[in-house]
Amino acid sequence: MADNRPTIAILGGTGAVGAGLAWRWARAGYPVIIGSRAAEKAEHAVREVAERAPGAALSGFENLAAAAAADIVVLTVPYANHGAMLEALKDTVQGKIFVDVTVPLAPPKVNRVQLPDGGSVAKAAQEYLGSGVKVVSALHNVAAAHLSDDHGAPDCDVLVCGDDADARQQVVELIEAAGLKGWHAGPIDNSVVAEALTSVLIFMNRRYKIDGAGIRITGDPEE
Amino acid sequence: MADNRPTIAILGGTGAVGAGLAWRWARAGYPVIIGSRAAEKAEHAVREVAERAPGAALSGFENLAAAAAADIVVLTVPYANHGAMLEALKDTVQGKIFVDVTVPLAPPKVNRVQLPDGGSVAKAAQEYLGSGVKVVSALHNVAAAHLSDDHGAPDCDVLVCGDDADARQQVVELIEAAGLKGWHAGPIDNSVVAEALTSVLIFMNRRYKIDGAGIRITGDPEE
Repeated sequence: MADNRPTIAILGGTGAVGAGLAWRWARAGYPVIIGSRAAEKAEHAVREVAERAPGAALSGFENLAAAAAADIVVLTVPYANHGAMLEALKDTVQGKIFVDVTVPLAPPKVNRVQLPDGGSVAKAAQEYLGSGVKVVSALHNVAAAHLSDDHGAPDCDVLVCGDDADARQQVVELIEAAGLKGWHAGPIDNSVVAEALTSVLIFMNRRYKIDGAGIRITGDPEE
Repeated sequence: MADNRPTIAILGGTGAVGAGLAWRWARAGYPVIIGSRAAEKAEHAVREVAERAPGAALSGFENLAAAAAADIVVLTVPYANHGAMLEALKDTVQGKIFVDVTVPLAPPKVNRVQLPDGGSVAKAAQEYLGSGVKVVSALHNVAAAHLSDDHGAPDCDVLVCGDDADARQQVVELIEAAGLKGWHAGPIDNSVVAEALTSVLIFMNRRYKIDGAGIRITGDPEE
């Protein structure tokens, strides 16, 4: 069973979100490659994650090499680096699932929604990478600090958007393997909701003194 | 105490959202004016709501007259009528709080986010009406069918956006008087999240066979 699991590359995997996801997926038995601008930084992050997930299949490469070696590529870099990363990755990610976690925050006003051109970062990524890449967006709203928390998962559901329903389903399963609740949230056009919601949650964190506000979807008939 | 309560006009108050709100606020002791394109339709709606809220201070007028007689004007019309309503109301709502409930759905693809020019309907309303009007947006995500439900409130928190914090606070209080949980969600730019979220919830209703999906904010330190 474990042999059939896809290999996941997490680009920008040395940040809080990337390292938290690497730990959660490695712990769940997925082969994980941490990518970073410098291979040494990636290897350092691998050693840190490995301490918390003994026996996991972890490796660390420079971002492009990490993407080349993976089935599913997850991008967790700051918005300012998004465009350059897409350009560098365009050829390498053809035929793969590309999970875009990028939140279009424009400091210093991070608690105010500032839509990028076209509204959604992930939609722009799908348009730029072309139909050969299955872009799925997810994980924008999960408080980074809680992702590495040993005491359970962040109290936040995950909206998963993408035009390819099968790819979206695979990402929903990855989310659940990480211990979170994932929801099919529609086509990539709908990603703007999750991307912009992060600024609303940051606003609430300040206004209500919350340590990592999140959302839950209500009305699930399964519950 | 009741004497100090603001008078609320609900324009488009004969629809499901408007009638549900009218009932909830009338029941809570607020003077409510139902507005409609035709005064007779408004009066008919008043009689229906009055049956469920005996003794409430209810009246019905044509939309413009309703707005003129109120302290707080709530707009619950279909998106297609939004522009014409703003034009008609611009002078009348100066100096008032204007609560925009409009969701920019573009049939038939209502489960796909289709952002209006500029991203947000309420932001466009604030720009059009000018700084003399305090635009607050709210109540986009509450399932209309559940608003008139006797057996409790819809299982959905309400994101309240607006540039004027005092006006936003008044609307948060109105939301809570209606039996719902309201949250300060930031400036009017943030309204795009609530406006676009409705398409995501419609997507989920279909995908998961939910009768009115909603959201709850998590991490409230008060809980």
